[in-house]
Amino acid sequence: MKELEERIQKDGRILGNDVLKVDSFLNHQVDPVLMQKMGQEFYNYFHNKPITKILTVESSGIAPAVMTGLEFKKPVIFARKHKSITMNNDTYIADVYSFTKKTTNKISIAKHFLNEEDHVLIIDDFLANGQAVSGLTSIIKQANATLEGIGIVIEKTFQKGRQLIDQQNIPILSLARIKAFKNGQVVFAEE
Amino acid sequence: MKELEERIQKDGRILGNDVLKVDSFLNHQVDPVLMQKMGQEFYNYFHNKPITKILTVESSGIAPAVMTGLEFKKPVIFARKHKSITMNNDTYIADVYSFTKKTTNKISIAKHFLNEEDHVLIIDDFLANGQAVSGLTSIIKQANATLEGIGIVIEKTFQKGRQLIDQQNIPILSLARIKAFKNGQVVFAEE
Repeated sequence: MKELEERIQKDGRILGNDVLKVDSFLNHQVDPVLMQKMGQEFYNYFHNKPITKILTVESSGIAPAVMTGLEFKKPVIFARKHKSITMNNDTYIADVYSFTKKTTNKISIAKHFLNEEDHVLIIDDFLANGQAVSGLTSIIKQANATLEGIGIVIEKTFQKGRQLIDQQNIPILSLARIKAFKNGQVVFAEE
Repeated sequence: MKELEERIQKDGRILGNDVLKVDSFLNHQVDPVLMQKMGQEFYNYFHNKPITKILTVESSGIAPAVMTGLEFKKPVIFARKHKSITMNNDTYIADVYSFTKKTTNKISIAKHFLNEEDHVLIIDDFLANGQAVSGLTSIIKQANATLEGIGIVIEKTFQKGRQLIDQQNIPILSLARIKAFKNGQVVFAEE
């Protein structure tokens, strides 16, 4: 998505070797007009799938997911993050490991929002090592729902998340694909 | 807002004496079409103000705030919640006490997203005791920005938040105003 790539070039900040900070339009301050265009891109790509629910993780996934849900006119569920949560009968729970923070969080979804009749589109802000997507996929399996596809705002192709998804033959659209950070600049993968 | 009141009657669940759970369309699962209509209501009410930024708190404020920002075509900032955060030069910080959980959280905003030229509209999901709004107001003051108004999805008129805001003569629009829970039913305040 050209407009997103240009925005990343303009406003993204590279921290260390592999962290891209986009808190001026996605992760802390949000550009709603850009979010709407991203929702339209995801809709254009996945609209032939029988999507019943959009699934994301709080907080940075919410804005792109809600804009995608608006196009599909379907509900959006955002998984809650917890330091700890006890297994119970009302909640699906999965682990999400953070390579950046070196900690494991739990994510959860109330069971009555997801069941075997659901066809789910996952939307998330970043795909790096694929831990958030793996956690959401685990929850979709627990619910016996069908995962129809994954929409990612920014993918880092040099980390292993994309490979994990491709191995499972899950349709995926990443709106911006970063293959490297070079001399403080973002290098995008070719289409 | 009639459609919101009907949705609360249909899907809201009352817990204990004063808690309304609306996690099927606002707080965990989100109805994006309803969120868009709420954003339009806030825009219609506040569009004569010179709004430059929409301000909310993660996570449940994000969906209505982003839809409001879409109407205004202005950036949305969501304050981050922390169990603890240390004062530093880059961040505005305020305390938010939760009467439900009896704990104090910190909320924060990166300083470079808010300054004395900003005219801010606060959007939040609930107004009860007004603690979140007070925290956001404190941050707006720290930034020497101007608070232009407050948009609330669901107000509980029998708690003290509204009074706090009215005492400061801040323009406010609540889309649904609940004056009581009676025999397991929601009673709305008259217009």
